Amino acid sequence: MTTDLTQTTTDLYERMRATNPLVQCITNYVAMNYAANVLLAAGAPPAMVHTPEESGEFAAIASALTVNIGTLSPNWVEGMIAAAKSANDAGKPWVLDPVAHFATGYRQGTTTELLKLNPTIIRGNASEIIALGGGQSAGQGVDSGDPVEQAEDAARTLATAQKAIVAVTGEVDFVTDGTRSVRIAGGSDLMPKITAMGCALTALTGAYVAIAPDQAFEATVAALANFAVAGEIAAQSANGPASFMIAFVDGLYTLDAPTFKANARITAQ
Amino acid sequence: MTTDLTQTTTDLYERMRATNPLVQCITNYVAMNYAANVLLAAGAPPAMVHTPEESGEFAAIASALTVNIGTLSPNWVEGMIAAAKSANDAGKPWVLDPVAHFATGYRQGTTTELLKLNPTIIRGNASEIIALGGGQSAGQGVDSGDPVEQAEDAARTLATAQKAIVAVTGEVDFVTDGTRSVRIAGGSDLMPKITAMGCALTALTGAYVAIAPDQAFEATVAALANFAVAGEIAAQSANGPASFMIAFVDGLYTLDAPTFKANARITAQ
Amino acid sequence: MTTDLTQTTTDLYERMRATNPLVQCITNYVAMNYAANVLLAAGAPPAMVHTPEESGEFAAIASALTVNIGTLSPNWVEGMIAAAKSANDAGKPWVLDPVAHFATGYRQGTTTELLKLNPTIIRGNASEIIALGGGQSAGQGVDSGDPVEQAEDAARTLATAQKAIVAVTGEVDFVTDGTRSVRIAGGSDLMPKITAMGCALTALTGAYVAIAPDQAFEATVAALANFAVAGEIAAQSANGPASFMIAFVDGLYTLDAPTFKANARITAQ
Repeated sequence: MTTDLTQTTTDLYERMRATNPLVQCITNYVAMNYAANVLLAAGAPPAMVHTPEESGEFAAIASALTVNIGTLSPNWVEGMIAAAKSANDAGKPWVLDPVAHFATGYRQGTTTELLKLNPTIIRGNASEIIALGGGQSAGQGVDSGDPVEQAEDAARTLATAQKAIVAVTGEVDFVTDGTRSVRIAGGSDLMPKITAMGCALTALTGAYVAIAPDQAFEATVAALANFAVAGEIAAQSANGPASFMIAFVDGLYTLDAPTFKANARITAQ
Repeated sequence: MTTDLTQTTTDLYERMRATNPLVQCITNYVAMNYAANVLLAAGAPPAMVHTPEESGEFAAIASALTVNIGTLSPNWVEGMIAAAKSANDAGKPWVLDPVAHFATGYRQGTTTELLKLNPTIIRGNASEIIALGGGQSAGQGVDSGDPVEQAEDAARTLATAQKAIVAVTGEVDFVTDGTRSVRIAGGSDLMPKITAMGCALTALTGAYVAIAPDQAFEATVAALANFAVAGEIAAQSANGPASFMIAFVDGLYTLDAPTFKANARITAQ
Repeated sequence: MTTDLTQTTTDLYERMRATNPLVQCITNYVAMNYAANVLLAAGAPPAMVHTPEESGEFAAIASALTVNIGTLSPNWVEGMIAAAKSANDAGKPWVLDPVAHFATGYRQGTTTELLKLNPTIIRGNASEIIALGGGQSAGQGVDSGDPVEQAEDAARTLATAQKAIVAVTGEVDFVTDGTRSVRIAGGSDLMPKITAMGCALTALTGAYVAIAPDQAFEATVAALANFAVAGEIAAQSANGPASFMIAFVDGLYTLDAPTFKANARITAQ
């Protein structure tokens, strides 16, 4: 299965680069610029359209939608809900990134509403997924206080309950649909030192599921492998978090399919 | 005429760098940081003041206003309108960047309102200008689906109807006042791979028209030439979009008038 | 006293890096990404939580709060006030950055409201502090039109009136509690050429006062010294403002206590 997945994700990588899917990203103020540059470099044009006056209309045009709750306010929450409903109506996949959903009542309430709208994929760090899966998390702010391994059971529970793909990202990523599950290694320990890296990964996951809505599990694995491969390469030339950030975007742009395939480290569980 | 324009735009370049005009930028969330850094590096202090509670008051203080509709919401639209009205009342020039105005009804309606307020300059990509000029565009998201050449007639029509300068930017830029028109070559094919590059150019156009409100045509050409020259130089040291983005800002900062003049490629049509 | 302060601030530096305090930053759209990356690189996880629906709840969780009025709108102003009140109720320190508060009536009114909520520290450029201290400033936009030296009396007056620490940043920074005062040298003349640098410094001041709420004066000096030392080092490898911006974040990340101590230039007044 691992060999198959490496080939499948490499094929998805090539297809995403060739297709340039339009991805609507409703993400936080901190991440908007970096996520857009990551998507463009990876091969998918982003569109940041968030207000309820147009978010639903645009979700019907875009090939996929991603929603990240990093910096909420009422207008944005309304826009997220309108966009997710429209994506559902149009049969378009959508990805939820429930940033620090446990930190305040407002975040919890918003996340509960969004989960009712059946995200195709849920991506979070270990603390976020543990808390969604009903466990006790050590998270406080936006960073994870827990290792990925401790979130695997919660991820399976959440995936089954939500009939969604769940991705837990961290030192080694974990993806499950409730039954199947894989780990993706790679990346760099500089990644958590840069803000918006997880948000950008959520956006990229949207680009992959846009071109393979019927293979959401494989699309998620491909997005994570793309990040892990580019991150590992970028770390070789970085002097710190900011030069890593630059090398990473350059690396996403110059990456090719043979390098993707040779460096993707996907292992079945 | 071309030789004259090269000298005229070089003079404007020197004057802008010496004058440091204060430019009010109402732009989208994605572009705000990069546009501000581009303006600062080029020589003009930016001020991002958008809310209707103060946008009009500030437009009377600033030397020029730029309005970009990339990430709309009602508070911002109200602030744009208040600022444009105030700029008009105070006799200050203002620049409109109608990002993907054709994508949703909300964008169309907002653009219609803003066009009634007589922008001094309208800058867009080919798809945006074709759609404004009454043509059939291939655009969908924020990127142009059309080449600049196909937008030249629409640009002339729009310039005449609006009594405005119209700039179509792309591989080779095109500027017209309805009668005169020029092309500006240069730049890099990495530019469309970086988000907010067009938005930053709109902001810079504001800096030029701020110091030459009676020469809006020449000011627009100067801004585009400044971008094209700095872009061409930056591309020589870039490894990809992100390192280009950095080299470009550095290059705007270190550029001087002789280099500007020697590398500006402006041709009359 | 200077020698003591160098040792004290070095100790605070080490403690901040070891403690990783959670800092809630309500800052402007332009600065959000850069301020977050500066905090992360320096050692403190940031959380950008601004809307009144959750800003107060989160301020009770965070170790410190910073408020920057760069890009205001009603929802944000309400969120700032709710967060500052909650920080006060929870006994958490908070830092105010009154960006261009003199530019419009809306900014003036907001700043008056925020000053009533007793910020622990006020950080601004010379024009901003002069205007707050009742003087006549040459400021117009967001950049200072006055040298730091001319703001020293206003800073002392403001510090005494507000019972707050006041920091005036510029070529040589000045910090006072109304009685004691010091200057901090260092940094680079590229710093004012990058947007959000002052906003990021405000955020970092929050990280220091978070771990030493009873030493707000020393914490402020430590934050400014951290910036000045990292800035001076970054300038050595920069080609312009953007490469400086990258080298600065890398430098904050790789800096260590001996380098901090050896390069901090703090002189008592």
